[in-house]
Amino acid sequence: MNAWEAAGTPEAAHVYLSALMEALVQAGVHHLVFCPGSRSTPVLLTAHRTPNLRLWQHVDERSAGFFALGMARALGEPVAVLVTSGTAAANLHPAVAEARYGRVPLVLLTADRPRELREVGAPQTIDQVGLFGPHAKASLELPLPEGSPRMVRHAQATGARAAALAREAPAGPVHLNLPLREPLIPRPPAAGPGEEGLASRNAPAATLGGIRVEAGRRSLEPEAIASLAEELLAVRRGLVVVGPQDDPSLAGPVARLAQRLGWPLLADPLSQLRQGPAGGGQEAAPRITTYDAFLRVPGAFERLAPGGVLRLGAAPVSKVLGQFLEHHAGVPQWVVDEAPAWRDPAQTATRMVWAEPRRLAEQLTAALSAGEGAADPARALDPLGVPERPWTGASDRAETPWLEMWRRLEEASAGALAEAVHAPEPGELFEGRVFAELASLLPEGSLLFAGNSMPVRDLDAFHRGAAGVRVLANRGASGIDGVVSSALGAAAGGGDGPAVLVLGDLSLYHDLNGLLAARLHRIPLTVVLLHNDGGGIFSFLPQATLGDAFEPLFATPTGLDFRPAVEMYGGRLLRPAGWEAFREAVRTGLEERALTVVEVRSERKRNAALHREAWRRVEAAVAPILEVARP
Amino acid sequence: MNAWEAAGTPEAAHVYLSALMEALVQAGVHHLVFCPGSRSTPVLLTAHRTPNLRLWQHVDERSAGFFALGMARALGEPVAVLVTSGTAAANLHPAVAEARYGRVPLVLLTADRPRELREVGAPQTIDQVGLFGPHAKASLELPLPEGSPRMVRHAQATGARAAALAREAPAGPVHLNLPLREPLIPRPPAAGPGEEGLASRNAPAATLGGIRVEAGRRSLEPEAIASLAEELLAVRRGLVVVGPQDDPSLAGPVARLAQRLGWPLLADPLSQLRQGPAGGGQEAAPRITTYDAFLRVPGAFERLAPGGVLRLGAAPVSKVLGQFLEHHAGVPQWVVDEAPAWRDPAQTATRMVWAEPRRLAEQLTAALSAGEGAADPARALDPLGVPERPWTGASDRAETPWLEMWRRLEEASAGALAEAVHAPEPGELFEGRVFAELASLLPEGSLLFAGNSMPVRDLDAFHRGAAGVRVLANRGASGIDGVVSSALGAAAGGGDGPAVLVLGDLSLYHDLNGLLAARLHRIPLTVVLLHNDGGGIFSFLPQATLGDAFEPLFATPTGLDFRPAVEMYGGRLLRPAGWEAFREAVRTGLEERALTVVEVRSERKRNAALHREAWRRVEAAVAPILEVARP
Repeated sequence: MNAWEAAGTPEAAHVYLSALMEALVQAGVHHLVFCPGSRSTPVLLTAHRTPNLRLWQHVDERSAGFFALGMARALGEPVAVLVTSGTAAANLHPAVAEARYGRVPLVLLTADRPRELREVGAPQTIDQVGLFGPHAKASLELPLPEGSPRMVRHAQATGARAAALAREAPAGPVHLNLPLREPLIPRPPAAGPGEEGLASRNAPAATLGGIRVEAGRRSLEPEAIASLAEELLAVRRGLVVVGPQDDPSLAGPVARLAQRLGWPLLADPLSQLRQGPAGGGQEAAPRITTYDAFLRVPGAFERLAPGGVLRLGAAPVSKVLGQFLEHHAGVPQWVVDEAPAWRDPAQTATRMVWAEPRRLAEQLTAALSAGEGAADPARALDPLGVPERPWTGASDRAETPWLEMWRRLEEASAGALAEAVHAPEPGELFEGRVFAELASLLPEGSLLFAGNSMPVRDLDAFHRGAAGVRVLANRGASGIDGVVSSALGAAAGGGDGPAVLVLGDLSLYHDLNGLLAARLHRIPLTVVLLHNDGGGIFSFLPQATLGDAFEPLFATPTGLDFRPAVEMYGGRLLRPAGWEAFREAVRTGLEERALTVVEVRSERKRNAALHREAWRRVEAAVAPILEVARP
Repeated sequence: MNAWEAAGTPEAAHVYLSALMEALVQAGVHHLVFCPGSRSTPVLLTAHRTPNLRLWQHVDERSAGFFALGMARALGEPVAVLVTSGTAAANLHPAVAEARYGRVPLVLLTADRPRELREVGAPQTIDQVGLFGPHAKASLELPLPEGSPRMVRHAQATGARAAALAREAPAGPVHLNLPLREPLIPRPPAAGPGEEGLASRNAPAATLGGIRVEAGRRSLEPEAIASLAEELLAVRRGLVVVGPQDDPSLAGPVARLAQRLGWPLLADPLSQLRQGPAGGGQEAAPRITTYDAFLRVPGAFERLAPGGVLRLGAAPVSKVLGQFLEHHAGVPQWVVDEAPAWRDPAQTATRMVWAEPRRLAEQLTAALSAGEGAADPARALDPLGVPERPWTGASDRAETPWLEMWRRLEEASAGALAEAVHAPEPGELFEGRVFAELASLLPEGSLLFAGNSMPVRDLDAFHRGAAGVRVLANRGASGIDGVVSSALGAAAGGGDGPAVLVLGDLSLYHDLNGLLAARLHRIPLTVVLLHNDGGGIFSFLPQATLGDAFEPLFATPTGLDFRPAVEMYGGRLLRPAGWEAFREAVRTGLEERALTVVEVRSERKRNAALHREAWRRVEAAVAPILEVARP
């Protein structure tokens, strides 16, 4: 037996791990995020000399995991993470959970002690087999490296399989646990006498072509499409609701479907559908972005009762929209999902449609167009009680009263919200205005990342969309953790445009370590920090009524001034005193392409009051429109 | 049915959770570490009004977990942790893994969405049932709160059970997952007409006494003790090795046992046995603390071949000692452990003794004393080839050549190491000297916490023990993460004495967030930061020979100046230029009882060279002693 064929030798590690890393690259993994460690040495050294694989050094594994997640989210490709054994691996768990529910493809490589050193008191050894439980889509315990042709094929297959499985809907994290023995420096097998190198020796990966996965995607049979199209056609007052989803290419087909159906399109801020023209269906299928505001108006739920709802993407950010859909449990609600999942928190869906959504939208649009000219008798009666222009399947530009009402609500609400953000004293920095300002500051090709808790809700309320601006957030598990790293990873993987992150002070504190990546890898990022010294969202919740217990138990102010920490990581912190200064600060950040933190100071109670004032303005603006609909 | 008896009502939450929290307190849980969140509201509000339960606010759950761990380690009592649902809970995983392998009792309370909101796309919802896999000793999914007498008893039993199970050997983390429904503000049941309050209504915990666990501890039968004593008596050249363990009360009984056996006692820096007089057995059973240095000397393994080894505690910090024990696989090695575990990384144990070690040591000492006067014929021949004073079971002060050699090695090594730390230029701050200096600076009642990787190894090499100073570290999984928080938790729970933490710069960076607790809770801590800008340990490993790849892949320098961050958390950072200034800085820290970071700057290569120089000095000093033993 050759040295590289024996399990666990440095030669075996060289041959086996080379095959694994090359297979990952071949399967489309081009980035590996790693943290220092000893046990992971053979993998790291192999990765270091693998072509077409970029290495990203980190120190804190938790931040490293979220960095990889952000990068994979922006790229739409699996990113690999490598950590050493022990608690290092456990630190990945938060990012793994977010990746699982946020459907982000990751390949997690955790170095481990070999089996004989587990559960016997060896240091840096925990139970890593299945460490992430159901949060990993698959968790494989690899064998000790062996370099025989049989085992090289195993390494190649495992690499190809892990990357493909990570992409497969629902995309998510795949975990490979790698037991490794000392010595930990891998060694290329020495060429024997008369041999020119490895290629002649039948061992290395080079002589084996490897394997590629051709993964089909789930789609409905033509009969099912036709039947679904018929169901949709039967609906009066339909709605299309698109929740968070990262694929920009879904926007066009969904907009065209909504247009063809003649249904308003309620676009979550993370749906990639608020970002401007896609499909040109503006007239017939208005993009609705202000429902979170106008659905709060008393009576709106009833006035806007839908006859059916077609839902795509994850559960929308808007809690009010969720309540609206729950209120109308009973009307047909279709949930489209490529994965065999169940995205229906309130259990109001009446039909799950498990199919790839882009293709489905195109097929439905085609099916509906095929029925062109056929009158829909159900639509002859105007559901709002006022005469309706006759609907035909043909004209997707027909403006029904239903569409007209939603469009008018959108216009009135958007106007009221735009006024509301300007209502406070000119010098007063209202958190809600930040996204409105950013919309006009961000050039095409920008990336906008929103923190969880309040920022993503403000994004929902005040961001009408900006052309060519990609909007991302961690809405899988919606944690306030890992946001800095996710944004930096997205910025590093998301192309050449500038990147802006908006987040709160507790969230910045939680992942302050993440800023190190900006320093180590010179990743430009403009951070808009909504600093109200604590958890701003609690001022909107019933907890706010608790009196003395509120501040220490829920608001949990830290009293931190982040400037020193930002400077420690090579960035600078600006505190604009008004909106002109804010714009100037953001522009500076975008131009300098360094780490710039723009701090917007606010006061939690006042912030809640200003939000309520904005909703009052919306109510005043939309009341006459809803009034029309009253009997 | 009363409101409080129905599952999930605010009244039920009040009654059920009160019973649970009171049961935990009754079972000895007096501290609850929490992070903000909405879903956890009912538990937090209940805890807030539970008598004899102190609440510790944090923001970052990872740090919170380690803070609780450090506190529980110092107290020897379970500490509770409360976090909200989602990735918040996953952030506890690193501390949970450390607690599992470090045997630290914790009660983890994770708030969760009710079952109907799981795996259906609801936000902040991950799969928390069994979240920590085998790293939790037990993981219970609780029912929705119900306030009936039956369910109040369930809450009481669950609280008592969780705390008792966490303490039970091996101590560790117990996980209670708590599903909670909105509304989240619990409400005391209203008294009915003519009722004076809850006590009259048969529902609340007050009317039920609760349950207490009386937990026996594992001990051997007298016959087994006698037989074990006989086995030990048959050994010539025996050794007692005590690894990391947190219980200070074990020191006396083990020292007396070693004394009675006439065996040298190799005391790990975390064994609580280096800390000075315990049992007064100094003459007959020398405490050996320098084995990590002198066992490196070529030939030492053979010269010091033991005839048997009695091992207690976890695997020792010293890798050389581990190799020494492995080298002598084949001689009897007894591993004492109260838990039915397998603390034997190299699989050299020949007998596992599953019994509570303190009692076992006392029983063995008594059994050996009972055999008093009986000559041991096996000992008549001196194993070292020089005449041995006749051994009798009676006199535990008999100094055999075996004991004498170990004592002389200890003296010579300790002397050489003490010289070695003074060898560099007077102004040069050598990392190794830090622990030697601290030994004379720390008053009795102090707590010394050591970071993993290099600091704990330097502790092993250069800390001979200091009277009344408790020494702790995270040696369960030996990660560099969570060290700041663990030390702060230990300081908060460990009594009134000053606390000092020694750690490296990567470790400080990893848990920089942990410093917030010092600010929020005014916990005094003196941090000695060994700052060599990167992972110092790699300079001692084969990776150091890798050339260009070394710095970016292994040393991973961050280039951070921590002063701004330390100041952000309300502390100050001192950079002494020499040892007098170092002592002054540490004294300042100890007196001020605030957060003080004393930075010791060093250079990784030079540091490795100085360590090697110290080992060379030890070799020179002990060579003549080992020489004597040569044939």
